[in-house]
Amino acid sequence: MNTLGHIFRFTNFGESHGPAIGGVVDGMPAGLPLDVAAIQCELDRRRPGSGAAGTSSRRESDLIEILSGVYEGVTTGTPIAFVIANIDARPADYDSMRHALRPGHADATYMLKYGVRDHRGGGRASARTTAATVAAGAMARQLIAHSGISVRAYASSIGGATDAEGMARELREAQQAADTTGGTVTCVISGCPAGLGEPVFGKLQARLAAAMMSINAAKGFEYGEGFASAAMRGSQTLDRPVGIDSALHTEANHAGGILGGISTGEDITMRVAFKPIATMMRAVDTIDSHGQPCTLMAKGRHDVCAVPRAVPVVEAMACLTMADALLAARAAGQLSTL
Amino acid sequence: MNTLGHIFRFTNFGESHGPAIGGVVDGMPAGLPLDVAAIQCELDRRRPGSGAAGTSSRRESDLIEILSGVYEGVTTGTPIAFVIANIDARPADYDSMRHALRPGHADATYMLKYGVRDHRGGGRASARTTAATVAAGAMARQLIAHSGISVRAYASSIGGATDAEGMARELREAQQAADTTGGTVTCVISGCPAGLGEPVFGKLQARLAAAMMSINAAKGFEYGEGFASAAMRGSQTLDRPVGIDSALHTEANHAGGILGGISTGEDITMRVAFKPIATMMRAVDTIDSHGQPCTLMAKGRHDVCAVPRAVPVVEAMACLTMADALLAARAAGQLSTL
Amino acid sequence: MNTLGHIFRFTNFGESHGPAIGGVVDGMPAGLPLDVAAIQCELDRRRPGSGAAGTSSRRESDLIEILSGVYEGVTTGTPIAFVIANIDARPADYDSMRHALRPGHADATYMLKYGVRDHRGGGRASARTTAATVAAGAMARQLIAHSGISVRAYASSIGGATDAEGMARELREAQQAADTTGGTVTCVISGCPAGLGEPVFGKLQARLAAAMMSINAAKGFEYGEGFASAAMRGSQTLDRPVGIDSALHTEANHAGGILGGISTGEDITMRVAFKPIATMMRAVDTIDSHGQPCTLMAKGRHDVCAVPRAVPVVEAMACLTMADALLAARAAGQLSTL
Amino acid sequence: MNTLGHIFRFTNFGESHGPAIGGVVDGMPAGLPLDVAAIQCELDRRRPGSGAAGTSSRRESDLIEILSGVYEGVTTGTPIAFVIANIDARPADYDSMRHALRPGHADATYMLKYGVRDHRGGGRASARTTAATVAAGAMARQLIAHSGISVRAYASSIGGATDAEGMARELREAQQAADTTGGTVTCVISGCPAGLGEPVFGKLQARLAAAMMSINAAKGFEYGEGFASAAMRGSQTLDRPVGIDSALHTEANHAGGILGGISTGEDITMRVAFKPIATMMRAVDTIDSHGQPCTLMAKGRHDVCAVPRAVPVVEAMACLTMADALLAARAAGQLSTL
Repeated sequence: MNTLGHIFRFTNFGESHGPAIGGVVDGMPAGLPLDVAAIQCELDRRRPGSGAAGTSSRRESDLIEILSGVYEGVTTGTPIAFVIANIDARPADYDSMRHALRPGHADATYMLKYGVRDHRGGGRASARTTAATVAAGAMARQLIAHSGISVRAYASSIGGATDAEGMARELREAQQAADTTGGTVTCVISGCPAGLGEPVFGKLQARLAAAMMSINAAKGFEYGEGFASAAMRGSQTLDRPVGIDSALHTEANHAGGILGGISTGEDITMRVAFKPIATMMRAVDTIDSHGQPCTLMAKGRHDVCAVPRAVPVVEAMACLTMADALLAARAAGQLSTL
Repeated sequence: MNTLGHIFRFTNFGESHGPAIGGVVDGMPAGLPLDVAAIQCELDRRRPGSGAAGTSSRRESDLIEILSGVYEGVTTGTPIAFVIANIDARPADYDSMRHALRPGHADATYMLKYGVRDHRGGGRASARTTAATVAAGAMARQLIAHSGISVRAYASSIGGATDAEGMARELREAQQAADTTGGTVTCVISGCPAGLGEPVFGKLQARLAAAMMSINAAKGFEYGEGFASAAMRGSQTLDRPVGIDSALHTEANHAGGILGGISTGEDITMRVAFKPIATMMRAVDTIDSHGQPCTLMAKGRHDVCAVPRAVPVVEAMACLTMADALLAARAAGQLSTL
Repeated sequence: MNTLGHIFRFTNFGESHGPAIGGVVDGMPAGLPLDVAAIQCELDRRRPGSGAAGTSSRRESDLIEILSGVYEGVTTGTPIAFVIANIDARPADYDSMRHALRPGHADATYMLKYGVRDHRGGGRASARTTAATVAAGAMARQLIAHSGISVRAYASSIGGATDAEGMARELREAQQAADTTGGTVTCVISGCPAGLGEPVFGKLQARLAAAMMSINAAKGFEYGEGFASAAMRGSQTLDRPVGIDSALHTEANHAGGILGGISTGEDITMRVAFKPIATMMRAVDTIDSHGQPCTLMAKGRHDVCAVPRAVPVVEAMACLTMADALLAARAAGQLSTL
Repeated sequence: MNTLGHIFRFTNFGESHGPAIGGVVDGMPAGLPLDVAAIQCELDRRRPGSGAAGTSSRRESDLIEILSGVYEGVTTGTPIAFVIANIDARPADYDSMRHALRPGHADATYMLKYGVRDHRGGGRASARTTAATVAAGAMARQLIAHSGISVRAYASSIGGATDAEGMARELREAQQAADTTGGTVTCVISGCPAGLGEPVFGKLQARLAAAMMSINAAKGFEYGEGFASAAMRGSQTLDRPVGIDSALHTEANHAGGILGGISTGEDITMRVAFKPIATMMRAVDTIDSHGQPCTLMAKGRHDVCAVPRAVPVVEAMACLTMADALLAARAAGQLSTL
């Protein structure tokens, strides 16, 4: 349940304030020179305190240590385990919140599900777990790059604003108001060979949706023309083919690069919606685990908006999903284009 | 890849114009009296020609035949295999389209992926495969009902209209224009115990998203306040807890019944966007598999909008997902509420 | 739980006296011309009443009907579902045994596990379910043949006898004594490329062992020198390499074609032990499901020894296992030898 | 492929001479007080240099460090990741063997499969990886103990000898002859509730066989009367039921505690055959990876017989298998006896 993928599989482990987070990547083919600096670079993009506006001031070096699966810089085909130490954990920040149920957080659901929980910094529910995902995604990225696939995401809206200036203003204003804000991340997968994805339950968009909806604070997923197409006519969204070689070429790629669950070879485009960060730097009325009213004043270090740091996470999830789909296609013998 | 679920597993098989479609449900607990009439009733809701406006005139009795796993009306704990014969298949309708790449369909992607394909009626890519899903979903529904879970979906918009009259008009106008239209289906899961779903990659919303995005023509998924929350402030989406017993109770359930990937016990609300049906009853310019231009005039029997017949499919996918999550929670020993 | 394999997956369904048994093969690559006559031929080898000495007189035509996944004689890459009707079912033979717990059978364990059970002919526990396995194995055989892999099994002992005459005598004597007898089946996989199997938990011998121990009445598995090597010295079992090209060549292949869980390219040799058939044509004292003593007189049609009809089942399980291992190796990019 | 289990899942990672080995246990129910000292105790039993006759002199403290999934001594329901550092690694011992293909080892098969390999100490193929398995097994043992299940294994033969004195002599003589020897381990699972295991492909003996055949040097598996029953008559192996309550009681438990793939509630008995350790402390003629003849003189530290250190590994694999079967039974609602 903490594993993503079927052939290229990533198992994520760790809690926000335990000794370390990390993961195991199983199914990585042998013989890939693994660029650890590139992995570290992805981690640095996601890192708290990396300077992006409206992000938490928690300071984590987020240095990856690889424990297995790589020998003399090359993958060996065996599981790649890695750990990222939790250094700047300040569990005491959370002492007063041990029994409080923070609104919009998983405190109550973990308690109801498990009976016990590591409450410190959100424990397993913390977005800190996405650091391990980013590291694994960076490995997947290096694999799919060999098949010409590249993945890029960007903040496409914050609090309703869609231009850079507006987005910066939204962040600033929310922070000044001791509030938080939502936004969207757009992701584009380029260079994807046609033929990835499986019919019916293994549709590429279903895998991508599951991946994206696994990210903390994600509330929606769409690809191609998405929700907008629900208000359109067929004559408007028509994806008229204009050529076919190793890929299908259409007039406008309304479909977003996937037809019938299978990649067309055109750009795969998708968008992920993030709700506002639940923790605001203001007093909030709530209850504790016994149902008693209490007032919370957040003390941890928190982002104003999920979007800036979600961008590399969205990319990582896309890379992991595409790596798995690529290996499935290889298994099926779709070799000519792969 | 044609199997959904981890503990409660449904394998879907079949093509639109082969001898039969069907499936295997594995993991159904023993001792459940299986109401076959109720399954048939769900199939009748989805059936083409069931009279709903704007639906295909293909006539299929869609009678389910159960081959295994049920003895004297009660599930035995062994796999429940079932078939639904394809009776009103008219493959000749598709002869002229054998080499054509229908815009917005999977013709090109199947060809690029597999090299060969059963082109008749869309083959495996046909929405006819959802009949088997509806049958399996009806079995899942009977299981989760024992834990108090119920699932209901409805058409929430067609072509932008959100009231019944407007939706009917959209369907009518699109049909008159030899066009098609998109829409959305809203789904509500009630009575769900708190504690279903898993952290990180097994989040309940991720499973639901994958399930919904597996439905033909689905282009987007959101839950709770979804995409709208991306333009909101944290102070607006705040899910203030007001009580806790075997479930969490909040002021407004902005979250849509899931926090941190785990059900709160409140209603789970989600919405699925469907693009307009790709096949319009008009001449369409396209190319064939050799890249030669050709003109297509649809001859099959096609819906104007996916939404009316998607409603029971959305419900079925929700039931299948919840059955799997319920059994996972049982395995984990979350017994008191289940 | 009724599915074998990870990439090439076979789901088996059905009970001895239900309407049909069958299965779904998912993961079969597209473009394989499927020889249905060859599948039928394998079914005929396993069929009761096929004339082999000491086999049940149940008459089943065991005709396979393929429902999906094959178009114009070629696999399409989508799930291949098939059914085999139960024609000569005589459930009344089992009426008197409805509550009896037949010694050595699964009657009690199914009842304890499920509370309910289809008792007729052993229901799901019947060896009849292996017919579906044989059909799926015959499909797998056609896939692996393209990579040069062939699988052959034979009866290597019956009741202690290892030559043909002795085995025939054992069968005859057991039958005359209204008794049954055990035996072993030896299986050899030839032409297997080096490099199939995975380290640690995906070892090829582990997969083969699980496959073989899934066969009704199997009580033991060994490969290479097996149990005999437990009484040997290292100097006796030494597998001295004498050459290496796309495969490893050793002096004597003591290892049985697998080292470290991965195929060497030499013949894979294994042996499966089968206990005597539990049902004997004599009165047997036992108890019923309420613990009351009763006497059973078998009325069904039963084999004297599992071995003759197990031979094609062993082959089928080996073919299914190798097909899955082959596709896993393809996924990992081990292409040059595959 | 490096993961064992379906609901209770253990992923094993690491190489003999990398920085660490370890694993991730996913699916452990929440609320279990985890006795880390008991885990360490199991590790100490398997540890090289633990003083057992005929075992390697490699000195590893084998201290387990738990990174996640446990909070204040209690499992939280989230993945339990752990590492065991490789301290006494002496990779230089293996420098001369970098290109040599050690007879009976996985050197050639890893090279043929992956193209690259970590040759040091056998890399991933080293029995050192079983330390992580033993740690995970010790966690599983604590879970199944709550359902009354206990697991014990013992050396049942070494080099043909079956009494303690004979076994000691075999070890001594083999060591003096710079040779190695094989043996068998017997394992008994007591207190297992009836009803664990699944029909057809999830049979309990199939899972146990796969688990045992995953252990380094294992060449055979049998349960109940195993291979011996292949030479018996049905009248000899008859498992006459004598009583039934929450378990089946038979006269002699010939079956070894499993009928039809499902536990009867009686003791589950099995035996695993281990070949002689491949590395002998003598000069051995072999070839290198270019096919050139060479002579090897082992320099590492090696056991004389796999059996003494395999005993806790066999137990661990049995515990892991039973934990998974137990949770599957819980998922299926078999609650009364569990």
